[in-house]
Amino acid sequence: MKIAIYGYGNLGRGIEAAVRQNSDMELFGVFTRRNPETVTTNTEGLKVYSSDDILKYKEEIDVLIICGGSATDLPEMTPELSKNFNVIDSFDTHAEIVNHFERVDKEAKANGNIALISAGWDPGMFSINRLYGSAILPDGNDYTFWGRGVSQGHSDAIRRIDGVLDARQYTVPVPEALEKVRNGENPTLTTCEKHLRECYVVAEEGADLERIENEIKTMPNYFEPYDTTVTFITEEELKKYHSEIPHGGSVIRTGKTGFEGSHNHVVEFSLKLDSNPEFTASVIVSFARAIHRMHQRGEVGCKTVFDVKPADLSVLSSKELMAHLL
Amino acid sequence: MKIAIYGYGNLGRGIEAAVRQNSDMELFGVFTRRNPETVTTNTEGLKVYSSDDILKYKEEIDVLIICGGSATDLPEMTPELSKNFNVIDSFDTHAEIVNHFERVDKEAKANGNIALISAGWDPGMFSINRLYGSAILPDGNDYTFWGRGVSQGHSDAIRRIDGVLDARQYTVPVPEALEKVRNGENPTLTTCEKHLRECYVVAEEGADLERIENEIKTMPNYFEPYDTTVTFITEEELKKYHSEIPHGGSVIRTGKTGFEGSHNHVVEFSLKLDSNPEFTASVIVSFARAIHRMHQRGEVGCKTVFDVKPADLSVLSSKELMAHLL
Repeated sequence: MKIAIYGYGNLGRGIEAAVRQNSDMELFGVFTRRNPETVTTNTEGLKVYSSDDILKYKEEIDVLIICGGSATDLPEMTPELSKNFNVIDSFDTHAEIVNHFERVDKEAKANGNIALISAGWDPGMFSINRLYGSAILPDGNDYTFWGRGVSQGHSDAIRRIDGVLDARQYTVPVPEALEKVRNGENPTLTTCEKHLRECYVVAEEGADLERIENEIKTMPNYFEPYDTTVTFITEEELKKYHSEIPHGGSVIRTGKTGFEGSHNHVVEFSLKLDSNPEFTASVIVSFARAIHRMHQRGEVGCKTVFDVKPADLSVLSSKELMAHLL
Repeated sequence: MKIAIYGYGNLGRGIEAAVRQNSDMELFGVFTRRNPETVTTNTEGLKVYSSDDILKYKEEIDVLIICGGSATDLPEMTPELSKNFNVIDSFDTHAEIVNHFERVDKEAKANGNIALISAGWDPGMFSINRLYGSAILPDGNDYTFWGRGVSQGHSDAIRRIDGVLDARQYTVPVPEALEKVRNGENPTLTTCEKHLRECYVVAEEGADLERIENEIKTMPNYFEPYDTTVTFITEEELKKYHSEIPHGGSVIRTGKTGFEGSHNHVVEFSLKLDSNPEFTASVIVSFARAIHRMHQRGEVGCKTVFDVKPADLSVLSSKELMAHLL
């Protein structure tokens, strides 16, 4: 199957690397809104095209992976491109997913294409685990913890403060909260009670550090409700210790069974990722395989990760899966 | 949807309790090979029938859950019953799954029924997580740890030793092995290197404890290759501290991504279960919902957990799932 990448940032590069690990796939090329001559890929011979020309290649692409941002790119791109391609995106604005789904579904169905939205790990693998957990243990509670990992939005918010040159913000689960949930204590916890915010900040020379720290810690929504720590470091330290984009977290379902509800169960799915965009890309690529197969079986319209049977994600045959993984 | 239970042991009772937690299901009744009058259920008014009479109720049962043993019951029961019912079982002899599948598939297809084999947690939820892990991270390693939990087979093996009145064996993951895997060290580990065996034994008065301990520790396959501990306890202690059937474990996938394979990822799915049969039953009941829906859409033949899309497991609608769990 031929995969094309639409948008070549961190996620696009992750897709490029992930496709190489899958023997049943090849990369058709990269589409960019920039001047294609200014884009250098990591793969010898991989073609870069202008996004303006994409319709010319309609017949040569099995699945188009759209690597845009959820705020403004994907709400436009995914419905539009699903008129002509089987597409997949990682739309992650949870509150807007139903709207996005309906817009994509309309275009994909009208044109006989298949689309899958919101692939990745949250939404994505975390969502799947929330679903399995709640279906298996109906009398129970859901908990999602994020981190330890870099939050791009929170890092950007710090960078906008006067006197700040650069910053990196880590979201960190509160160990005591995680422990309580894992012990099956079923605590009631807000997002703030579940997470700490660690900030590493490079300030301008002579900047008022106390003011910067105060501005961070009192920033509404972003930091004010959280237990926040601020550490000032040098630009060299930021480069040396904070240049990667790790992330992870846990989805935990706790629930009771039995005639008296006396037996407790804890189901946990957790991720520890060195690279958030590369892992997200790896998830997307396996779902690209699935929607290609589903389309070959005649399925059209918009799907989510909930609509994909696990067998469709794997390069292995049904018999191999049964013999080796079941 | 109407669920019937075929076989009323620990698993059958677990199904009875689990169905109560699902508002879209009701219990039709229990079928037993024993004299129905000798079977007392935990549900007021629940009917108990002889398994000989089951064909009389063919039209009244949506899904029949077969609660038999994998050694001799299920290889006979599941193909036979799938001639007349939509069925689900928890067949767990990994090496025989492909054969079992083919025999069930033939009968179910020939008669327009649907069947799902090997539901539970291993095979079952662990299998699903092995599949997701290997599909997402093709360049990686799989690890399955079982425990801490009671192994019925190993407990029985101890009970057969001369001078032993009762026994309970716990399979326990080796903490250091688990730690290495979680750290992404990708160790090569045999099942024996991953697990310890803890034995709690009630001996006859005056029995030669040293001989019993030695017979346990040198028992081929069961204990000899493992680090095994034997603790002698009283019958009262066994009842007080070891009357439950807890289990659990972890499926861990570690893998690399990126152009240089320099980023490591650890994906872990873990279970901590107070009651092995009740959790197994809860998984089975959610898959019973799924195969009922699949059959209503016209699907027939034998399926595994790999063939079920997550959305079919949940009582929630597609839109509710998107809004609340995605």
